[in-house]
Amino acid sequence: MLKKIAIDMDEVIAHPNARFSEWYERDYGIKITQEDLFRTGKKFYHYAGDEKYRKYLFEKGFFKDLPVIPDSQEVVKWLSGYYEIFIVTAAMEFRNSMEDKYDWLQKYFPFLSWKNFVFCGRKDMILTDFLIDDHVKNLETFPGTGILYNAPHNLENTAFHRVNNWKDIKLYFEKEKTGIINH
Amino acid sequence: MLKKIAIDMDEVIAHPNARFSEWYERDYGIKITQEDLFRTGKKFYHYAGDEKYRKYLFEKGFFKDLPVIPDSQEVVKWLSGYYEIFIVTAAMEFRNSMEDKYDWLQKYFPFLSWKNFVFCGRKDMILTDFLIDDHVKNLETFPGTGILYNAPHNLENTAFHRVNNWKDIKLYFEKEKTGIINH
Repeated sequence: MLKKIAIDMDEVIAHPNARFSEWYERDYGIKITQEDLFRTGKKFYHYAGDEKYRKYLFEKGFFKDLPVIPDSQEVVKWLSGYYEIFIVTAAMEFRNSMEDKYDWLQKYFPFLSWKNFVFCGRKDMILTDFLIDDHVKNLETFPGTGILYNAPHNLENTAFHRVNNWKDIKLYFEKEKTGIINH
Repeated sequence: MLKKIAIDMDEVIAHPNARFSEWYERDYGIKITQEDLFRTGKKFYHYAGDEKYRKYLFEKGFFKDLPVIPDSQEVVKWLSGYYEIFIVTAAMEFRNSMEDKYDWLQKYFPFLSWKNFVFCGRKDMILTDFLIDDHVKNLETFPGTGILYNAPHNLENTAFHRVNNWKDIKLYFEKEKTGIINH
């Protein structure tokens, strides 16, 4: 039986911060970059100092056609040859995100089956061997091996194995699949 | 820490067969009852001999305002005092069902949090202590204790503890919570 990897969506394979930035520039003519967020360790709406940007998460269309995180398609496709892949996203807070997220997955990850999509609120009842996520709180309650995807809001955490990009993830699982990594 | 119960939606707390029956009567002027299905051990669209009825599952509105299975609201509310309740439904085959199902849960089970809703394709990566489901295939791959909710399409199964209605479920968990049942 193949080992299972659960993969988060936002800021791991999809890039909502790019949409925030686009809408902020539309609203105010000022560009907030990913580098601004990393420099300050803040989420977009905290950096912007405007809760309106968090509210955008509840709007239809916010999650539609988000940019894909570099290399995620190629590496997830490669991983799917050795592991069972589940996309596990905490979509339930955002009722209007579900169809956008579903369509996005079918468009950008067409090699994955809908059988392996999970939209949930919490992740402590997900039973897979690995979880790749940018939120420490999700990894802390996850019973398997947590892998922290580098993000502005998790820079201080040292408890989990950190990956900076999908090339790092490929390197990690190239070792894991041959049994070199002991968990 | 409270034990966790995962509860399926369709034909466990919501009643799609009632919608099938309503639309069949609208289309052909003939009423197919739940008793007809139980007598023959068939799913609605197999009994009707018309694959069109399975296709209705993909339409917007099919899952909207479905009747609630008797006593499920009261018993789930009671259970939520002693267990953590998750609603786990294989919605992912039906992209257009998600918003209807979400709205239905918020309307008829307002005491449950969206944090505890799970829309998935498979249930073998759900980590709870119990799963109440009408599909044997979901219980067979579930690592916890499976409880089979009586349905026309599962009458022959004897491998799982069968409950006929929500009164049965209350009786089961009245014993379980005091430790009388050994799994």
